[in-house]
Amino acid sequence: MKKTIAVLPGDGIGPEVTDAAVKVLQSIAIRYGHTFHLKHAAIGGTAVDQFDNPLPQQTIDVCEASDAILLGAVGGTKWDSNPAHLRPEKGLLNIRKHFDLFANIRPVKAVPALLASSPLKEEVAKEVDLVIVRELTSGLYFGEPKRRSEKSAVDTLVYTRDEIERIVNQAFEIARTRKGKVTSVDKANVLETSKLWREVVEERKAAYPDIEVEHMLVDSAAMKLITNPRTFDVVVTENMFGDILSDEASVITGSLGMLPSASIRSDGFGLYEPVHGSAPDIAGQNKANPSAAILSAAMMLKHSFGLHTEATAIEKAVMGVLEDGYCTGDLAGEGKRVVSTDRFVTKVVEELERE
Amino acid sequence: MKKTIAVLPGDGIGPEVTDAAVKVLQSIAIRYGHTFHLKHAAIGGTAVDQFDNPLPQQTIDVCEASDAILLGAVGGTKWDSNPAHLRPEKGLLNIRKHFDLFANIRPVKAVPALLASSPLKEEVAKEVDLVIVRELTSGLYFGEPKRRSEKSAVDTLVYTRDEIERIVNQAFEIARTRKGKVTSVDKANVLETSKLWREVVEERKAAYPDIEVEHMLVDSAAMKLITNPRTFDVVVTENMFGDILSDEASVITGSLGMLPSASIRSDGFGLYEPVHGSAPDIAGQNKANPSAAILSAAMMLKHSFGLHTEATAIEKAVMGVLEDGYCTGDLAGEGKRVVSTDRFVTKVVEELERE
Ligand SMILES: CC(C)[C@H](C(=O)O)[C@@H](O)C(=O)O
Ligand SMILES: CC(C)[C@H](C(=O)O)[C@@H](O)C(=O)O
Repeated sequence: MKKTIAVLPGDGIGPEVTDAAVKVLQSIAIRYGHTFHLKHAAIGGTAVDQFDNPLPQQTIDVCEASDAILLGAVGGTKWDSNPAHLRPEKGLLNIRKHFDLFANIRPVKAVPALLASSPLKEEVAKEVDLVIVRELTSGLYFGEPKRRSEKSAVDTLVYTRDEIERIVNQAFEIARTRKGKVTSVDKANVLETSKLWREVVEERKAAYPDIEVEHMLVDSAAMKLITNPRTFDVVVTENMFGDILSDEASVITGSLGMLPSASIRSDGFGLYEPVHGSAPDIAGQNKANPSAAILSAAMMLKHSFGLHTEATAIEKAVMGVLEDGYCTGDLAGEGKRVVSTDRFVTKVVEELERE
Repeated sequence: MKKTIAVLPGDGIGPEVTDAAVKVLQSIAIRYGHTFHLKHAAIGGTAVDQFDNPLPQQTIDVCEASDAILLGAVGGTKWDSNPAHLRPEKGLLNIRKHFDLFANIRPVKAVPALLASSPLKEEVAKEVDLVIVRELTSGLYFGEPKRRSEKSAVDTLVYTRDEIERIVNQAFEIARTRKGKVTSVDKANVLETSKLWREVVEERKAAYPDIEVEHMLVDSAAMKLITNPRTFDVVVTENMFGDILSDEASVITGSLGMLPSASIRSDGFGLYEPVHGSAPDIAGQNKANPSAAILSAAMMLKHSFGLHTEATAIEKAVMGVLEDGYCTGDLAGEGKRVVSTDRFVTKVVEELERE
């Protein structure tokens, strides 16, 4: 298989973790006889510094000529006081909208070797295996009017039936490949958009008789993610609720540094990035945990290229290295051997070659 | 002191927990020489059944003739398929708006005797002592336009500078009586309303040089509440974020059944209610934990009537009973003696008389 991948390292630890993922992809290419053309381009604060634009046209061009996008991370205090259009995260919002990446998919799975790092009791966090499916290109993020005056400000939460339908379908499809349960999260006792959301879920349910569906209010969901995270399989929700709940979910198993994400559209094109941020405090120190970026590359192989065997091989290799007790500093603890980013990647590649 | 208190028991376990709180108030009245006139009125599903209105005019009249409101809980599956204007929670939304109860205050404090019930590791949950100050009468809950068509729906998130100022001032004032730190939570990298919010916090800060102020994005706050809850003192945020974060915060210490809340306006008038819901599954079984309702009554004495000694006496009495190992079924565990609602209240009253 021949594929072109746009690599957007971004800011902070972004470059080192994308480098790590690229090494793993190269090893996969050799072993399974694929060709991955990698085209690097700028995004985020780095792009602001170079091109005065967090998502320059040449980056869009590179992505448009690619089959998928691998992103590191964007952001850093350096750009925090920039005006909105020159802020790193604007690059992220723009790329999502430009490529219509409406479905953000974030799996959260407890890793037995890492439960000690969880803030939750082991009996609560163990065996958690859920995925948050967040609508990513509508809602409060993009709704108009969105404006300021001296005395007030307004944002608009708007959803069309079509926008809800496509994300809900996505959630149902994912549930079919998993435990067969969808929890739709809304605030239907207060919001009109949530009432429409709930209606659409009820309608689409008919086409998925094999899937168990439950509706949950966002405030209850925020509680249950902590008290009973194992009861969730696929959680589907609108953009802002998804932002909050997916970050909440990302810390419950203690493996934030491990979590990948995909932002995809219907034709398989997608952007893959670690859930963690740019961590400027440890950037350039060969300390960052590259697992989330590596696992994001695995998600890319699966979702965008249909390379399931290769994706599974990567996942197994990362878990194997962790089970052998190797980890980066973020996961240090009793019985662990803390290694550098480079060394961790080497271990993963060795493990891949051994499989 | 002579005060009139509107008692709105509501649905499910609402009546039994408000009864419990009333018994404690009566004991306080006798011991400290106060007169509390208690006037009962209907709200929620019970009011829908009796008056076809979740907040009947006669209930508003009773509240208007009172110095404070003590509420049990509203809601239940029985009314779940009612049209919006006949749903129990509409009673709650209406009473907040009618009385301009713009500040919802929810303290969350770890109780050492109850840490075993927390989903968080003891070392994470211990010594948590924070309060969420949520704006309660604006934002997405009440903003116009709010409407549905066949193909789309819209809600509006709008805030005026005045609305933000008064809640932010409230948070600063509360911080002065506590650890002196305010965390303002917003989504200023995406929302115009959040940018205005952040500006107002920055402006008001000048009047409170003694208070440490930090800004935090709502997604980060959702994580930090789990990973590092001890770092918070006063958290101030807009209505919808507050709904989500306060429910999230309510489960971290394992003492949801213990948590009181106040919804107040500037002149001291307020509505006091447990954070927990109406729990229809255990209603009428003399099993419910009355602590949250009792502690809500204590908040009323403090905030609305300025009776600090009496409020502290109630808090100490409840903690004393818990430390003696008595609890209701929700907090059962090793070394605990599970008792009925009635028996728990009797214990609290005995403890009050002993103090
Ligand atoms: C950086 C920010 C705009 C973004 C969002 O809110 O979507 C981030 O929090 C995320 O979840 O990817
Ligand atoms: C019942 C509901 C409308 C209400 C809210 O969302 O405000 C509740 O969740 C609360 O927090 O008091």
